[in-house]
Amino acid sequence: MKNSIGNNLVISLFGESHGDSIGIVVDGLPAGVAIDTDFMQQQMKKRKGSSDISTKRHEDDEVEFASGYFEGRTTGAPLCLYIKNKDVISQDYEQNKYRMRPSHADFVANEKFHGFQDYRGGGHFSGRLSAPIVAAGAIALQILKSLGIVIGTHILQCYDEYDAPFAKEEALLKKQIQALEKSAFPCIQKASEKKMIEVIRAQAAAKDSVGGVLESCVLHMPYGIGEPFFDSCESIIAHYLYSIPACKSVSFGAGYDFANLLGSEANDPFFFDGKVKTKSNHNGGINGGISNGMPILLQSVFKPTPSIYQKQDSIHMQTHKKESITIKGRHDPAIIHRACVVVDSMLALAILDLYMSKQAREILKGENL
Amino acid sequence: MKNSIGNNLVISLFGESHGDSIGIVVDGLPAGVAIDTDFMQQQMKKRKGSSDISTKRHEDDEVEFASGYFEGRTTGAPLCLYIKNKDVISQDYEQNKYRMRPSHADFVANEKFHGFQDYRGGGHFSGRLSAPIVAAGAIALQILKSLGIVIGTHILQCYDEYDAPFAKEEALLKKQIQALEKSAFPCIQKASEKKMIEVIRAQAAAKDSVGGVLESCVLHMPYGIGEPFFDSCESIIAHYLYSIPACKSVSFGAGYDFANLLGSEANDPFFFDGKVKTKSNHNGGINGGISNGMPILLQSVFKPTPSIYQKQDSIHMQTHKKESITIKGRHDPAIIHRACVVVDSMLALAILDLYMSKQAREILKGENL
Amino acid sequence: MKNSIGNNLVISLFGESHGDSIGIVVDGLPAGVAIDTDFMQQQMKKRKGSSDISTKRHEDDEVEFASGYFEGRTTGAPLCLYIKNKDVISQDYEQNKYRMRPSHADFVANEKFHGFQDYRGGGHFSGRLSAPIVAAGAIALQILKSLGIVIGTHILQCYDEYDAPFAKEEALLKKQIQALEKSAFPCIQKASEKKMIEVIRAQAAAKDSVGGVLESCVLHMPYGIGEPFFDSCESIIAHYLYSIPACKSVSFGAGYDFANLLGSEANDPFFFDGKVKTKSNHNGGINGGISNGMPILLQSVFKPTPSIYQKQDSIHMQTHKKESITIKGRHDPAIIHRACVVVDSMLALAILDLYMSKQAREILKGENL
Amino acid sequence: MKNSIGNNLVISLFGESHGDSIGIVVDGLPAGVAIDTDFMQQQMKKRKGSSDISTKRHEDDEVEFASGYFEGRTTGAPLCLYIKNKDVISQDYEQNKYRMRPSHADFVANEKFHGFQDYRGGGHFSGRLSAPIVAAGAIALQILKSLGIVIGTHILQCYDEYDAPFAKEEALLKKQIQALEKSAFPCIQKASEKKMIEVIRAQAAAKDSVGGVLESCVLHMPYGIGEPFFDSCESIIAHYLYSIPACKSVSFGAGYDFANLLGSEANDPFFFDGKVKTKSNHNGGINGGISNGMPILLQSVFKPTPSIYQKQDSIHMQTHKKESITIKGRHDPAIIHRACVVVDSMLALAILDLYMSKQAREILKGENL
Repeated sequence: MKNSIGNNLVISLFGESHGDSIGIVVDGLPAGVAIDTDFMQQQMKKRKGSSDISTKRHEDDEVEFASGYFEGRTTGAPLCLYIKNKDVISQDYEQNKYRMRPSHADFVANEKFHGFQDYRGGGHFSGRLSAPIVAAGAIALQILKSLGIVIGTHILQCYDEYDAPFAKEEALLKKQIQALEKSAFPCIQKASEKKMIEVIRAQAAAKDSVGGVLESCVLHMPYGIGEPFFDSCESIIAHYLYSIPACKSVSFGAGYDFANLLGSEANDPFFFDGKVKTKSNHNGGINGGISNGMPILLQSVFKPTPSIYQKQDSIHMQTHKKESITIKGRHDPAIIHRACVVVDSMLALAILDLYMSKQAREILKGENL
Repeated sequence: MKNSIGNNLVISLFGESHGDSIGIVVDGLPAGVAIDTDFMQQQMKKRKGSSDISTKRHEDDEVEFASGYFEGRTTGAPLCLYIKNKDVISQDYEQNKYRMRPSHADFVANEKFHGFQDYRGGGHFSGRLSAPIVAAGAIALQILKSLGIVIGTHILQCYDEYDAPFAKEEALLKKQIQALEKSAFPCIQKASEKKMIEVIRAQAAAKDSVGGVLESCVLHMPYGIGEPFFDSCESIIAHYLYSIPACKSVSFGAGYDFANLLGSEANDPFFFDGKVKTKSNHNGGINGGISNGMPILLQSVFKPTPSIYQKQDSIHMQTHKKESITIKGRHDPAIIHRACVVVDSMLALAILDLYMSKQAREILKGENL
Repeated sequence: MKNSIGNNLVISLFGESHGDSIGIVVDGLPAGVAIDTDFMQQQMKKRKGSSDISTKRHEDDEVEFASGYFEGRTTGAPLCLYIKNKDVISQDYEQNKYRMRPSHADFVANEKFHGFQDYRGGGHFSGRLSAPIVAAGAIALQILKSLGIVIGTHILQCYDEYDAPFAKEEALLKKQIQALEKSAFPCIQKASEKKMIEVIRAQAAAKDSVGGVLESCVLHMPYGIGEPFFDSCESIIAHYLYSIPACKSVSFGAGYDFANLLGSEANDPFFFDGKVKTKSNHNGGINGGISNGMPILLQSVFKPTPSIYQKQDSIHMQTHKKESITIKGRHDPAIIHRACVVVDSMLALAILDLYMSKQAREILKGENL
Repeated sequence: MKNSIGNNLVISLFGESHGDSIGIVVDGLPAGVAIDTDFMQQQMKKRKGSSDISTKRHEDDEVEFASGYFEGRTTGAPLCLYIKNKDVISQDYEQNKYRMRPSHADFVANEKFHGFQDYRGGGHFSGRLSAPIVAAGAIALQILKSLGIVIGTHILQCYDEYDAPFAKEEALLKKQIQALEKSAFPCIQKASEKKMIEVIRAQAAAKDSVGGVLESCVLHMPYGIGEPFFDSCESIIAHYLYSIPACKSVSFGAGYDFANLLGSEANDPFFFDGKVKTKSNHNGGINGGISNGMPILLQSVFKPTPSIYQKQDSIHMQTHKKESITIKGRHDPAIIHRACVVVDSMLALAILDLYMSKQAREILKGENL
């Protein structure tokens, strides 16, 4: 479906970096949800990041409701959110019309759209498109919270600096997630945060950029969400996360490390403690594609920002002659901290859709079967 | 869509391990494709694996065509493939009706389907469901080959043994893929194959199991396949691959290692050599979600087979009382070698659908725009 | 999606008239439904029709379950039904390989599938494909009945003979529907049935065929089913009904007659009688695309069977030379009575999907909004 | 998909009558189409209708592009069109919060959305939502014209006045369609137009309203568009048309009249005249769900506008007490003339999607099969 996704909660994304506006249509929301616009603005602010290690483009990112919102609540009709593009300096990009920035989408956009793409500021491929996703994700996160489901993400690795992984113990895990919610640079350990910011500053000074690893958790997931094959929890979550530009790896539970484990080490034995649980959680809360009630744990890797201020080799898009590129404009030396809230938003949208699809099937009670 | 996927090539999977049959409906195939049934059987045989390190369940896995196939060619109507279940020993499983095998889907299936699931042999969650995928994938692989696109997968890691990664040089890479096609245990280096088989035998003897890492390549991918956001190449490929039971990590290009690279190291500079290419290929042939013409490279991680013959801790599904489980039946000490052909099949189905979606848009030529 | 439809209850149809088998995958059914196979067989028998005014092809139409059915109940995994083709006399059709029967799909199939279609007996375009729809529809009808929703169809017009329309009064309407359920030639008035059968016999004797009008009713529809625009009740129901070969008109409520009414005559005033009702029901139970609790009423028109035994003008498919065609094989002089159960089945599948989509949204109760 | 539709050209509709704006996202358009904004405005103007027989609400209906449009052409990224709501007089409606206007969506919206719907001016159910459809349809009509496909609609019946049906002869038919394109009240015969407008004025004076029948034609349709079952031309076209509020009947070719024809009368014999044609066209250009190259002919029936200025019986939405309603606000005594351009737009969107889905399959040429 190109730029739409979802079975029962369908989102459709639109917009280009330097066009009129960017936005999203969210179709299928329950009617009557009192949207917490303060929370939405807080999430939008987290996405913008703190200024000295993030882009200097200053957009208000004021979210406006085109539809689906009346007297503070969702109406049940499609909700359309949009953000006007304001702080646009397009002349920065005009000289780049035929330039192919390494690891950017300039070349593929030109091939796919036969030269008609809006090339200004990356056009539709801009990271700015994550703004409406965060706005829509805020609503999904709020609804999931009403259902008891909590989501959080922290920076596990930023280049050569590491944070502690999520706690195994549930009460502590919950506290960690709550603490992350308010942070502009989400780490479990304050010391990690400080060191990571130093790493980013150092690489920014060197006209370079860094990537990193995020760890996410979905806590209090009910049993039985997800479908056996193509709509497995892993399939759907990965589909949403890989729609975030710069995401290049998604793993669940022990993830890559499963290759280093024996079956006897990797298996998660069941036990009963008021509810069914597993002693370990190598499977990241998912068996056979379906939630088993344990925390869903996953890791996503974001590559270093491709926009660096160093001179780089490339070719001219039309003549194919060699030319060197020095990127101008306002870019981030790292987006890993800003990506946390985007990942939380995508997770919320994915899980809410899976939740609703499970609900769709629950039409018959015992006596009617 | 639960057990269906695809925009223009829609596949719908059905079947349970010990039911009447397993199969797949493939809707949207071009009419007139002369199906290479020898190739299909060869792929089916690769999926079954060699007997001493694979399951002892002996199914013919004879693929029958219910529809969509006439006089050796596709008719254009939905093609339905099915495989009758024959070598079924259900009594092995009946005692497991209320047992929750660690890291299996027994518990979640019971929660999701309220106790009505076909529990025999894992039911719909059985690895056997990959058989119709391989049969359908054989047709997709054949069509892609007609279009010049070649796909191959090898075992990069099996517990503590490693194969060489794919070659960077295209001519050599093509040879490597051709060699893998015939192998029942696909490794680039013969020595790796031998050592990995030894590892599996040793762990089988210890009543244990192993997982591993697969590396896959899609060679001669045209420019411009994939969509900017939700149908990015990464999103769609990951969606299909995560539908394979036991897959727990999917990465593209440098993948997890992007976290350890600076932007200046990770970026892939463009150059022109008859066609546009990149010097390095950290992005695995995908920029902005869209193919850039370089080989698509990806890694997938498969967890160790959860069915091990050791005694394991669990609880009774209804009483929740602690009980120990010793799995019987016929199981694999490793599925990593059998997974290769399943990954190739899923890749082919994913890429053929993306290819067709690109084709759908190509309705207007220059003068008509 | 070509041969699939549905959001939460996805059906995928496959098969060709003279191929191995015809069938359907039904994905998304609630688990634990005790399928009433007697009812299913009764519906299959209704579809076959009585022999002297229906095709002389004698298929058992024995429905087999490939998957999704265990110990008499749905498992929740995709349910696949199939029917083996047995009474196949393909030589009747071979001479028709390059013949274009008027008003049949021979020509368009050849254009669409570039000459590779299975031309025997109409291939995938055969009316036989309605058999798996009736089998799947029987399950949907049974589930809707558990939910209190009842569906029935009768022949309102067969060429120049007419039945009485459905009663306005609900208790009587319910009785009428119950009576129709058992009938092989569903009419409200016995006299109409007799006359219509005479019409069909007379036209069969004249080597001709007739069509007709069906009236359908969905009784005890809950309020609020359907969506404002593209998934309006009318849109979805029409989509399913128009998938039945030979259906050429679908109307709701007053239908075509709305053109002859003034707004003051056509409007349905509300009143309260224990529940909200309307005095008249010109809108056929649907306002703004959404069910209003009144009986859903609709009419569908089926064209006369195009297979007639008279000599007809046509051309050769390849040479385009004029030639006359005299159709052989075993064909129906009317399918209008057999279509009733197909319409009921499609209605049930459409409404069950709409019902489930409404259910998907009902995740939040008052205090959580 | 609720408010989205399409396989390769996906449209998502949003907006409420008195909200911020109404709009549509169109995803999947070819890149580089030079949008004829004059044609788009002309279509928008046709939708508004002439003032004395249409609503007195005066909206500019100025279409703005949020995205997907750059330097006068489509970019290939999702195109979002929106129209700001300006001439809003909400106090007209506030008293109607708990009123249930007969044959309007007030009651069902309240049931479906649990009282949280935007009730002002019909909210999301307003006929105003057809404005973005017309804007998107203008682009689809333009693309189809580039492909040689032409679409037109006229008013066949308005209460008791009738227009001549479309000509059988192709050259004349083409001229008729071209003439209709410029008309604000599309009739083939000028005399019919005059009489119909008189009918509408007379009923408006009597505080009443009228409906009517539209006849549409798709000329120069290529062979082989449409799919055998669920995506048959009839299914898809009816799905789109029934998404227009007030549409209550859709028929193809001879439509309802098929019930009065014998097979020997209804069948369309083939002949060859440079290309394959049929002598008659009772099937309206569609056999087996697939275009046969003849003009696609269809009829749609629109009910009389439910907003009439007479006193009507109803009940209070909460108390269920009887009350009489006299509708205020600015309403149309007929929408049949304004509906013509909406029908053309929906037809264009439906057929362009079917066309693209056919194109998706055309990936292999003869030697590669």
